[in-house]
Amino acid sequence: MVTANPLLIPELRVMLAEGDVEGLRGVAEELHPASVAEFSEGLEDGELWQLLDALPVAHQADIFPYYPLARQVDLVKVADRQHLGTLLEKMAPDNRVDLLKELDPDLVEEILPLVAKAERHDIRMLLSCPEDSAGALMTTEYASLPADITAGEAVARLRSQAPDSESIYYIYVLKADRLLVGFISLRDLILARPNALVGDLMQEDPISVRIEEPSDEVVQKLARYDFLAIPVVDDHNRLVGIVTHDDVLDAVRQDATDEAQRAAAIAPLGEGYLEAALVSLTWKRGVWLTILFGTAAVTAMVLAKWKPAHEWLMYFIPLVVASGGNSGNQAATLVITALSTGDCKLADWKRILRREFAVSLMLGVLLAVPGFLLGLAYAPDPLQAMVIPATVFSVVMVGSLVGCVLPLIFRSLGLDPALMSNPFVSAIVDVVGILIYMAVATVVLA
Amino acid sequence: MVTANPLLIPELRVMLAEGDVEGLRGVAEELHPASVAEFSEGLEDGELWQLLDALPVAHQADIFPYYPLARQVDLVKVADRQHLGTLLEKMAPDNRVDLLKELDPDLVEEILPLVAKAERHDIRMLLSCPEDSAGALMTTEYASLPADITAGEAVARLRSQAPDSESIYYIYVLKADRLLVGFISLRDLILARPNALVGDLMQEDPISVRIEEPSDEVVQKLARYDFLAIPVVDDHNRLVGIVTHDDVLDAVRQDATDEAQRAAAIAPLGEGYLEAALVSLTWKRGVWLTILFGTAAVTAMVLAKWKPAHEWLMYFIPLVVASGGNSGNQAATLVITALSTGDCKLADWKRILRREFAVSLMLGVLLAVPGFLLGLAYAPDPLQAMVIPATVFSVVMVGSLVGCVLPLIFRSLGLDPALMSNPFVSAIVDVVGILIYMAVATVVLA
Repeated sequence: MVTANPLLIPELRVMLAEGDVEGLRGVAEELHPASVAEFSEGLEDGELWQLLDALPVAHQADIFPYYPLARQVDLVKVADRQHLGTLLEKMAPDNRVDLLKELDPDLVEEILPLVAKAERHDIRMLLSCPEDSAGALMTTEYASLPADITAGEAVARLRSQAPDSESIYYIYVLKADRLLVGFISLRDLILARPNALVGDLMQEDPISVRIEEPSDEVVQKLARYDFLAIPVVDDHNRLVGIVTHDDVLDAVRQDATDEAQRAAAIAPLGEGYLEAALVSLTWKRGVWLTILFGTAAVTAMVLAKWKPAHEWLMYFIPLVVASGGNSGNQAATLVITALSTGDCKLADWKRILRREFAVSLMLGVLLAVPGFLLGLAYAPDPLQAMVIPATVFSVVMVGSLVGCVLPLIFRSLGLDPALMSNPFVSAIVDVVGILIYMAVATVVLA
Repeated sequence: MVTANPLLIPELRVMLAEGDVEGLRGVAEELHPASVAEFSEGLEDGELWQLLDALPVAHQADIFPYYPLARQVDLVKVADRQHLGTLLEKMAPDNRVDLLKELDPDLVEEILPLVAKAERHDIRMLLSCPEDSAGALMTTEYASLPADITAGEAVARLRSQAPDSESIYYIYVLKADRLLVGFISLRDLILARPNALVGDLMQEDPISVRIEEPSDEVVQKLARYDFLAIPVVDDHNRLVGIVTHDDVLDAVRQDATDEAQRAAAIAPLGEGYLEAALVSLTWKRGVWLTILFGTAAVTAMVLAKWKPAHEWLMYFIPLVVASGGNSGNQAATLVITALSTGDCKLADWKRILRREFAVSLMLGVLLAVPGFLLGLAYAPDPLQAMVIPATVFSVVMVGSLVGCVLPLIFRSLGLDPALMSNPFVSAIVDVVGILIYMAVATVVLA
């Protein structure tokens, strides 16, 4: 955990060309594994393996997960299979599974037999956890102790196990069959009298998550209690793993990016903007643009059927569509973020609808006023001008209600409400907005 | 850190009515402070103080920050001033400053003289840190040691200081004048030989952030290195505080919500959707809807000036506007998220522009095809139908380029690129889209 004073790629290449193993090892040992990954990322795959091979496998296993996943996959493809098996054995359980999920299943089946049996079992278990569950976030490395030893003995045991820094600070107290009965922090162990019993010091019935619990809820619990890690248990309250603070932070950051992209009608890239291949970038945007083009085509067809009595009504089409779309987006985003942060539950749907009704009523009135003034400028008389405020008012109300109802429906169907996000809402509200406009114009001008 | 088996509000009220101080204290001691805050939130302000007053001040100070900030403010308003001074002294430095920032400045000036001098100094320092800086995220409580003691002595010192769990796991090694020279984790101290010197065990020149560094960069560093905390230094490399993992997680979650709301044209609520007052909710949406109504009014004025030769051109207005707006949103969101996660820097602007140019070229062609087919359905001949694909192509290209350039300009001006987010981009692209449509129609049909 030392500052990177990163070596430049040319210097590194000189050391590689000279086979300066000692020098390479010296540099790598002085730096945080993340820094080693960062400064060496510019090397070719072959050179990068040459660098890694200068280090002990355990050290390679520390550095490897810090490369972007796409790069890890590339590196795996050119690696010696036997070496890969050893490397996977040494990697943290969560990191190696993240990598294996990205690989071609055939390649995984080819590599797995080269991994020791216990680790292989662990890998298969983690691979089987559904996405976005506690199981998918957890690691199976944790520190545990029995309840009937003293604090002094406990510290001595930890010393001999030397768990890594991700898992040493929270220690779980287990009964037979890995049954989770308590929790103690390293802080409390250190501060306790050495002859106090772990069973007396520990906190009983620790807050935990079940392995199939959605990752949203894992994040909410860990954040609410400021935990370093949260234990993951099965249906019989047996400890199966822990989710650590750093993995939660990574998940939250990735989710935030995914959601922002989804809200802007982009299938989440899952990688950096500059790293993504142009074709993949085009596809992930194009598929949504095409869908939205299709819904926009409906607005054209609807308008073609409408022979408005007055040309000036045409001027206001973009304004009507934008008013509905904007208020729909607002409502949808508020409900989606409130559901995902845990501020609202599905059970709050009545309160949400009531609030949305009240707010959109006020917003509708707010926009109807400039709408009327604008209408006056183009309509031949004040009565006809009323078409605009009446439409804007209705479109804002309908847009807001549609925007808040759609994510709620998605959640009640067990789907991710974020899937019913802004682009969908806008597309629906666009068409509805034009239909409302036509209806209002027909009624008022009749 | 024990599971909440939360007491119900009626049971709690019975205990309060009976003045059952022992019982209340028993319940509060068994639970995590976050759980105490959660289950007692339903009480009236007066009842809540009655509950808190049953506990020692230090315990009150642990629980208090777990109430939502708005509730903390309400509680402060009805509290005894003298007691408030003592409570603030015991609260964690970052939590109390978060609260004080929400209070009326006059009230703060009234309370501060009641706080002990050293703490008051600390509060004023933290209050002076600019928003969204490392200083605004940090706490001033941290564990530190000199370099010239042994690991055994170090552990004994930590025992006697008993720092709280937020700060005991990373210990900073300081020279005279709080100069930061190294870092050692509690893990490494425990695993070391007791007579090894801290100065030999520590890692030198630890990765740190400067107090004025933007919070984005603090998040990126802490996440990249999986740290529990990151030290904050001044210009002379003197340690002034630390930013801990839990505060970073909270900041990232809040930022994600703020950004999502901003992208949907809502001034960030800064509180839960169900907690926000209806008037404030209406205002935070209404102000943006009104601005966007204003820009949409420009589209109406532009259209009013246009006397299109053919009525069918009018049908495609929403489609043209949507195509530009959607591709503009995509580009803006990609650039904004890439800048805020650190995937791109401003210096990458040439690469960003090149990529956006290539992708939007492909997207333009992709949408031009259905555009042509749709045009054929309404235009009298294929040449006239070409207006639609030509417009869609141009609008997608211009929309994408405007969308990626605006956040870059904002960043280069030192502003938050997220301010130039989707609603602004859409509003600009809407008007530009219609102008392009008019221009293309005039040229093709001439």
